[in-house]
Amino acid sequence: MRIFEQMESQVRSYIRAFPAIFATAEGAKLTDDHGNEYIDFFAGAGTLNYGHNNPMVSEALIEYIKGNGVIHGLDLATTAKRDFLETFYSTIMQPRHMEYKVQFTGPTGTNAVETALKIARMVKRRSNVISFTNGFHGLTMGSVAVTGNAFYRDESFINRTNVSFMPFDGYLGPEVNTAEYLRKFLDDYSSGVDLPAAIILETVQAEGGINVASDEWLREVEQICRAYDILLIVDDIQVGNGRTGTFFSFESSGISPDIITLSKSIGGGLPLAMVLLRPELDQWRPGEHTGTFRGNNLAFVAATKLFSYWQGTDMTEAVAYREKIVRERLGEIAAKYPQIEATVRGKGMINGLKIPAQNFCSEVSREAFERGLIIELAGANDDVLKLLPPLIIEEEVLRAGLDIIDEAIGAVLEKKENLITGNGSDY
Amino acid sequence: MRIFEQMESQVRSYIRAFPAIFATAEGAKLTDDHGNEYIDFFAGAGTLNYGHNNPMVSEALIEYIKGNGVIHGLDLATTAKRDFLETFYSTIMQPRHMEYKVQFTGPTGTNAVETALKIARMVKRRSNVISFTNGFHGLTMGSVAVTGNAFYRDESFINRTNVSFMPFDGYLGPEVNTAEYLRKFLDDYSSGVDLPAAIILETVQAEGGINVASDEWLREVEQICRAYDILLIVDDIQVGNGRTGTFFSFESSGISPDIITLSKSIGGGLPLAMVLLRPELDQWRPGEHTGTFRGNNLAFVAATKLFSYWQGTDMTEAVAYREKIVRERLGEIAAKYPQIEATVRGKGMINGLKIPAQNFCSEVSREAFERGLIIELAGANDDVLKLLPPLIIEEEVLRAGLDIIDEAIGAVLEKKENLITGNGSDY
Amino acid sequence: MRIFEQMESQVRSYIRAFPAIFATAEGAKLTDDHGNEYIDFFAGAGTLNYGHNNPMVSEALIEYIKGNGVIHGLDLATTAKRDFLETFYSTIMQPRHMEYKVQFTGPTGTNAVETALKIARMVKRRSNVISFTNGFHGLTMGSVAVTGNAFYRDESFINRTNVSFMPFDGYLGPEVNTAEYLRKFLDDYSSGVDLPAAIILETVQAEGGINVASDEWLREVEQICRAYDILLIVDDIQVGNGRTGTFFSFESSGISPDIITLSKSIGGGLPLAMVLLRPELDQWRPGEHTGTFRGNNLAFVAATKLFSYWQGTDMTEAVAYREKIVRERLGEIAAKYPQIEATVRGKGMINGLKIPAQNFCSEVSREAFERGLIIELAGANDDVLKLLPPLIIEEEVLRAGLDIIDEAIGAVLEKKENLITGNGSDY
Amino acid sequence: MRIFEQMESQVRSYIRAFPAIFATAEGAKLTDDHGNEYIDFFAGAGTLNYGHNNPMVSEALIEYIKGNGVIHGLDLATTAKRDFLETFYSTIMQPRHMEYKVQFTGPTGTNAVETALKIARMVKRRSNVISFTNGFHGLTMGSVAVTGNAFYRDESFINRTNVSFMPFDGYLGPEVNTAEYLRKFLDDYSSGVDLPAAIILETVQAEGGINVASDEWLREVEQICRAYDILLIVDDIQVGNGRTGTFFSFESSGISPDIITLSKSIGGGLPLAMVLLRPELDQWRPGEHTGTFRGNNLAFVAATKLFSYWQGTDMTEAVAYREKIVRERLGEIAAKYPQIEATVRGKGMINGLKIPAQNFCSEVSREAFERGLIIELAGANDDVLKLLPPLIIEEEVLRAGLDIIDEAIGAVLEKKENLITGNGSDY
Repeated sequence: MRIFEQMESQVRSYIRAFPAIFATAEGAKLTDDHGNEYIDFFAGAGTLNYGHNNPMVSEALIEYIKGNGVIHGLDLATTAKRDFLETFYSTIMQPRHMEYKVQFTGPTGTNAVETALKIARMVKRRSNVISFTNGFHGLTMGSVAVTGNAFYRDESFINRTNVSFMPFDGYLGPEVNTAEYLRKFLDDYSSGVDLPAAIILETVQAEGGINVASDEWLREVEQICRAYDILLIVDDIQVGNGRTGTFFSFESSGISPDIITLSKSIGGGLPLAMVLLRPELDQWRPGEHTGTFRGNNLAFVAATKLFSYWQGTDMTEAVAYREKIVRERLGEIAAKYPQIEATVRGKGMINGLKIPAQNFCSEVSREAFERGLIIELAGANDDVLKLLPPLIIEEEVLRAGLDIIDEAIGAVLEKKENLITGNGSDY
Repeated sequence: MRIFEQMESQVRSYIRAFPAIFATAEGAKLTDDHGNEYIDFFAGAGTLNYGHNNPMVSEALIEYIKGNGVIHGLDLATTAKRDFLETFYSTIMQPRHMEYKVQFTGPTGTNAVETALKIARMVKRRSNVISFTNGFHGLTMGSVAVTGNAFYRDESFINRTNVSFMPFDGYLGPEVNTAEYLRKFLDDYSSGVDLPAAIILETVQAEGGINVASDEWLREVEQICRAYDILLIVDDIQVGNGRTGTFFSFESSGISPDIITLSKSIGGGLPLAMVLLRPELDQWRPGEHTGTFRGNNLAFVAATKLFSYWQGTDMTEAVAYREKIVRERLGEIAAKYPQIEATVRGKGMINGLKIPAQNFCSEVSREAFERGLIIELAGANDDVLKLLPPLIIEEEVLRAGLDIIDEAIGAVLEKKENLITGNGSDY
Repeated sequence: MRIFEQMESQVRSYIRAFPAIFATAEGAKLTDDHGNEYIDFFAGAGTLNYGHNNPMVSEALIEYIKGNGVIHGLDLATTAKRDFLETFYSTIMQPRHMEYKVQFTGPTGTNAVETALKIARMVKRRSNVISFTNGFHGLTMGSVAVTGNAFYRDESFINRTNVSFMPFDGYLGPEVNTAEYLRKFLDDYSSGVDLPAAIILETVQAEGGINVASDEWLREVEQICRAYDILLIVDDIQVGNGRTGTFFSFESSGISPDIITLSKSIGGGLPLAMVLLRPELDQWRPGEHTGTFRGNNLAFVAATKLFSYWQGTDMTEAVAYREKIVRERLGEIAAKYPQIEATVRGKGMINGLKIPAQNFCSEVSREAFERGLIIELAGANDDVLKLLPPLIIEEEVLRAGLDIIDEAIGAVLEKKENLITGNGSDY
Repeated sequence: MRIFEQMESQVRSYIRAFPAIFATAEGAKLTDDHGNEYIDFFAGAGTLNYGHNNPMVSEALIEYIKGNGVIHGLDLATTAKRDFLETFYSTIMQPRHMEYKVQFTGPTGTNAVETALKIARMVKRRSNVISFTNGFHGLTMGSVAVTGNAFYRDESFINRTNVSFMPFDGYLGPEVNTAEYLRKFLDDYSSGVDLPAAIILETVQAEGGINVASDEWLREVEQICRAYDILLIVDDIQVGNGRTGTFFSFESSGISPDIITLSKSIGGGLPLAMVLLRPELDQWRPGEHTGTFRGNNLAFVAATKLFSYWQGTDMTEAVAYREKIVRERLGEIAAKYPQIEATVRGKGMINGLKIPAQNFCSEVSREAFERGLIIELAGANDDVLKLLPPLIIEEEVLRAGLDIIDEAIGAVLEKKENLITGNGSDY
């Protein structure tokens, strides 16, 4: 690991929590350079919904490279891009009766968010944007301005111009309807919250702590957008691509966003990001917003194959089946260790176990890693264990990972017990 | 092409100038789906210095994918990343006696620029940044603020907070030393230009019109940075990676930037971006600036192979050899058509032919495309033909491309002549 | 009136609602150039608490001018300023055990607010400031950013950088404690509302619609400020100077602001503005914030005399006596016309009659003006009649003014009735 | 003086350089509370062009106050305002064939500048504004953003959004035409300096060091404004009101600004500020920009009398006569002490003696004060003695003041000499 410490910036992050050098990967498993195997409940923070090295992807990539397919072509037309667009249309858009223009941005989520905010502000000629408490939308300047977590900001480099934060669904407790609160601010010309160009939201806040917006709340926010002529941007970067069971995370609510951002799993693990725009919002001048790596052809090749998962309803059923397993097992764990006051939260295959005690979750993650499970945390206080395995994880691997969580919690509790009884430490 | 018009945003750009569907590519050539071949003087806007589908890269990628190498791992340690870091250190850093920390950012140039500006402002606790006329640094909110071209801005979405634009080398004519001008503003406490955290520059402004900063000017700017405690950021995204003959574009000047941004060719055509930081500037907290696709393993695999070009001085000599060919041929062309008042500009293998008449260059590009050459324009007024072929282009292909430029200019002139003599049109 | 229409900007305001040319004034009465008398329930929007041409002031001014007292001296020491400071200390500060530094700013309220925000941000090294819904703090760039009403803003000229609006006391209905809401946002590191330098508030929002903060709410906000190391700025420009019965409006709550802004009545009708700073916040460098007319000597002369009102408790009792008259009479009026659904609101001698029907209040104001009463509106929708007479108004004049309100409402209702019954208009 | 130290903020400024308590004033003289007399070459930083306690003003004020004239009336019509507008029109506007709308703002210069910038940005729908090196326009947030001197700024509280600083006339030495430089930046779509709503300038930079723009430069800037559809704002707050010999400072150049700001002497020493707008720019909605003390009636009364100075050409001749005296005497002084390398600068009755040695000017000011002369400094480095006496100063008083400058310089030089020869100090 010396080369990483010597060469890489202090900013490096996951390498600290999971200190191994990974060599190979397949499906829901990673193997390090000593041959140790790990179950992956992290899945590239939602990038590997279809698993590591999905065989369909590997074969297609190899064939494409062997055939000297165009790898890099800026936004030139390529056969790979053509196939992607056609398949995306026939598999995803058409069956859902969705009419959107596709804009490929620099292949990272934050580029897609920057693009969405830019076109929204430009079309509406308004600079204000409403975002929600605990929202996470990326770390370039435009995106971090709509991101809640103060950890990513600094007086010196952030311009918070015209972003207003409103309480997300459930933020003020179950009895308060925060959509009504939002409506009150918008209805009042003197509230200090100027009419925004757009409202941007995640239907399930992942980094923010696995906070699930109800379908009803989403519909109410959409109605507010229509009533006040505000654009609705759904940032589906982390919870789109089937994570909640449907291709888009908002399908169960029936809402129809004006702009949708997609990235992470859309390229099957390879960098890709795109923005879907209602046709009437597509007011760009040619070349007005560009990026060298927009339209990553290898990712097109991968994605075109993976869309086959969305023919029929198998994928949705597969997620529902696994969701049930996860939710039940987490419920059992919460019941088994009442002293940790754990609560279960989530939707589809993004689930969390919230454990309020400080640092408890990070200790569980450490214990789990020692037992061969990679699991990350969420929430501003890192108090939620985030379960984000590949959607196609095999049932026995899934169950094995859940068992490790159980064991890891037990191990943490035991250590604390020993500390208390053994030496009177006030841990 | 119908699917592109139907599905893709109006923002699409190069596809309009070069309307073909490209299927395969090799070295300096692209082939469309009808089998037509094109010489590529565009090279992914500087992304394909090592050519399309460089065989070293293709082989390594196929092997890696076949072996189930980790494709996506956020910023986890992988064997691919380890190899990249070791090779980058031994091949690039160590021989140049450069000590920098490496930070992998989201794999696009603008992410690297955002990262550089953020750490600079954070470390210096100052928000102002100085950029130069005609500079181009990307289109996310932080980067577009330091980009000169107003085409990319809009009142509604841009916060120009604390960026001061200064005249680039040569901007006020050959007799004015713009570095002195910059010094005057910084020296005067009451100039309105507050002490900046950083000065950001390209040593050769590519998009801006192939404007080459002299080594002397670069040294003077560096001295100013030292004198006023300002960080010097060299954005080497487009002209690094050997484009000017040395790996870094600033090597001939002897300056030593505090921060360097790299992207485009660093991943051999695959998305990758990185920031090099003097160790004392690496003041990030773990995870303070992240991005899902930072550390693209396929790009690591490609890059690790390509660094072999930089063992010894072969690459530098190869660039110099081709530079001579390009410069001489462009000189001949300028001399052959005195009526177009063309001037030659450039350094290494980034060269331009400036032709002042409005729209002339775009017509040349169109004629060239019909003759099998892809060539793009630069400059705010699109008045520079930009020659940016792969560095490894074969001599005969290079000469063939140059010949096409000659013919295309002749064709444009002939059409104009016909218009004038034939029907009295005041074209 | 022709000269006003010919020469004055469209921006002119009150001259439209009260179209007369006023010549003389005394106490609570204005007389126009035709000798018509008007009772003044507007009082310079809170500038004339001590009445027009208070005899103490007139005499002192004449004497000072006759004696060639220094009229303008920037911030030089003058005998007038010395006397002001000594009297302010002995009459206002010392009896209240208040230790503050006095800063004279340009003699307008907005200059005082700009100054308060500037020093708060500078001392705390944070740029965010929290303001409240319906707050009004002035119209220069820094002040309008903390002002709620969108009428005063425009995309082109406002930088809303780092102001967060929170619900004022009562904003979400009587049952919701908005201070708790504020605490929730501050407590959550990921709420999107960054730790502010200061919270700025009016204890009674005047322009915002006569919204009275409860003493309990003010104390809770103060506790929040202490808990999170936030400065508390009370903008007492409109409701200080005895308007609520005590010299400072917050005295009944027992809170102790870090910064207090004063203007309007502090100069007895002459331009003056000042900022009171806790001594430890007075971190200005000499001359760092200036203004040509700071320290208006004629206003010092006036104010020094007027402080005599604050020896003993006569003033507080006088306000309480008149408050009772106003409140009872407004209650009677509300009861007399149940169809207008009027509600009474206020504190001390700032009181309002809220009448929800659109434009009703402006019609009442017009009818009142015809009957010899000047009365203005408040609230974002102009749905509150604002009663702001001089504190020293004679009882019979006060009662006469209240009678005119009664009559004016009756007249408006009669006109509506006629419209409906007479010609079936759908008024 | 104790009360000032005890009670007043550290920000106090001139009181430090001129530590006396002034009691009375007349014409060009101030008298302190011990009866000491001082010649005033400071004149309220340009506020007392007509002298302290001008008898015309004093009489009119006393009469107005005695007659219970309306002192405060927000923007209601008053007889005082009517008389002011009529006299301003007939005496100032009509003879110059100027057609402008008058807007009264809060009675300080910075409020006028904020207003001018706001309407300019609103009308043009552009946020950028161009200001010049060493410009000074006030210290509220909008104004300080166009003020050059970094002393007044702080990272925490300033938003420098969209202000571009350009070199003032002469900034780059006498041989460089900075208007051409400005034109180059505006002409280049990619210069980074976006098309501004307005250019704001002082024709003579007072605080900036008595920098006089040539008439030719002003005309060239005006032409640029016309060519690029930019509004020209002349900030005539300090050098209008006859300071340069004509009522407006720009009259000698023949330019015709779109917006003019006036304050300081316009109210004869009493707070007043106004903005003159070309009629087509007067696009305010009623009440859109207000301020409690806009339209200060006592200042109207004073100003109406003082406009009589501008009937005929006496005032202009009077300034010219005194200008000659000042300029000749300063020339003599510069010649008498060649070792201080003094240079004379100025126009009309704003003149400066630039002495480069550090702190020399402040020592001269101190010595002058001891000899009965109040004189201030200008320039970012305080290296200019600023001569700004009342325009109506008696010849013998003017000459006496100039003699004191001579003596004071001699005294400073003598002290230095003594230090060097007497004790070998390395002063």
